Amino acid sequence: MKIIVPYKKKGGKSRLSPLLSLSEREELAEYMLEDVVATLSKAGLEDVYIVSDEGLNAVLNKIISNSTDPMLIIMPDLPLISIENVLDVTSSNEDVVISPGRGGGTNILFLRDPSTFRVDYHGASFLNHLQIAKDMGLLTRVYESFYASCDIDEVDDLAELIIHGRGKSSQYLNSIGISLQITSGRVHVKREGSKDLIRP
Amino acid sequence: MKIIVPYKKKGGKSRLSPLLSLSEREELAEYMLEDVVATLSKAGLEDVYIVSDEGLNAVLNKIISNSTDPMLIIMPDLPLISIENVLDVTSSNEDVVISPGRGGGTNILFLRDPSTFRVDYHGASFLNHLQIAKDMGLLTRVYESFYASCDIDEVDDLAELIIHGRGKSSQYLNSIGISLQITSGRVHVKREGSKDLIRP
Repeated sequence: MKIIVPYKKKGGKSRLSPLLSLSEREELAEYMLEDVVATLSKAGLEDVYIVSDEGLNAVLNKIISNSTDPMLIIMPDLPLISIENVLDVTSSNEDVVISPGRGGGTNILFLRDPSTFRVDYHGASFLNHLQIAKDMGLLTRVYESFYASCDIDEVDDLAELIIHGRGKSSQYLNSIGISLQITSGRVHVKREGSKDLIRP
Repeated sequence: MKIIVPYKKKGGKSRLSPLLSLSEREELAEYMLEDVVATLSKAGLEDVYIVSDEGLNAVLNKIISNSTDPMLIIMPDLPLISIENVLDVTSSNEDVVISPGRGGGTNILFLRDPSTFRVDYHGASFLNHLQIAKDMGLLTRVYESFYASCDIDEVDDLAELIIHGRGKSSQYLNSIGISLQITSGRVHVKREGSKDLIRP
């Protein structure tokens, strides 16, 4: 099974800029990718292709249009995904498995026969992909997982990584002094030495 | 098995006030509770006690200190929880099952022998509860679920309810003109007739 990971190291993760410098964001992105690839490897999936995320839909649709073997498209900013998540998704019997991210995203997409599908990651891609699968008469499973839902894009998302992470990316946050800020309501994050609660 | 649902209808959900009026927030809270109770019922759990959430820790610790039968403590603002979620949690063999919410919360807590535990819902309660279970030598399972992680507290959370909800509370949002606002990045919500993207 081929694993496709759309990835941009340079200049990505701009929504983390209220808290992290450009080089920190790039380092974090790299560590998150390493965490994802390490989990895939532990799940026995080694055939991993990192592709550019510039023109994401075009890049992916070109790849899948020529593929008839099962394929997993997984985002690189899912440092919490577990081996169980990966095994559950890839052992599904359905034609398509969609694992939603927060805010309508598609964090993991499993395609039994990629050539029968086309991706649309713009907007509420979770809904797009459900509709596309329906239009194409494909049997679909929604794989719901908190860990798989946590794409790390915004400052508050870092709290999830600190609380639940066990890989390199959470260690990295710790190493640069990012820690939890316990407040009423949801927990946020702060940087060591900073008195202020940081909100995006 | 007793099910405990800490609930406040009056004046709750204040973080939704950028988008919803007081009466709308109270109605939404009520519909979400109904969705949760309906799912519990479909999972065969009918012994449901709605308790006040004023002084939450004291209320719950008083209840559990006198209970030795398995107990499920579940929050009322989890309209996405599935029958499978409820069955998975309550059929666990561990002493304690903790299902995390976003931002370090504890959305579902299953206690095989409640009298051996005490709750602490302040701050990062997920971490508190892990630590308490460890201190008490209890075998613990983290039950990770996207649906169970989605407590509806903030305006952006409504997007999850619109996208994934199938119960009364998502119908209610639709009935008062709340719909998705598709933008770059995560999807947000808007109110019918409003041109502006509403952010908390």
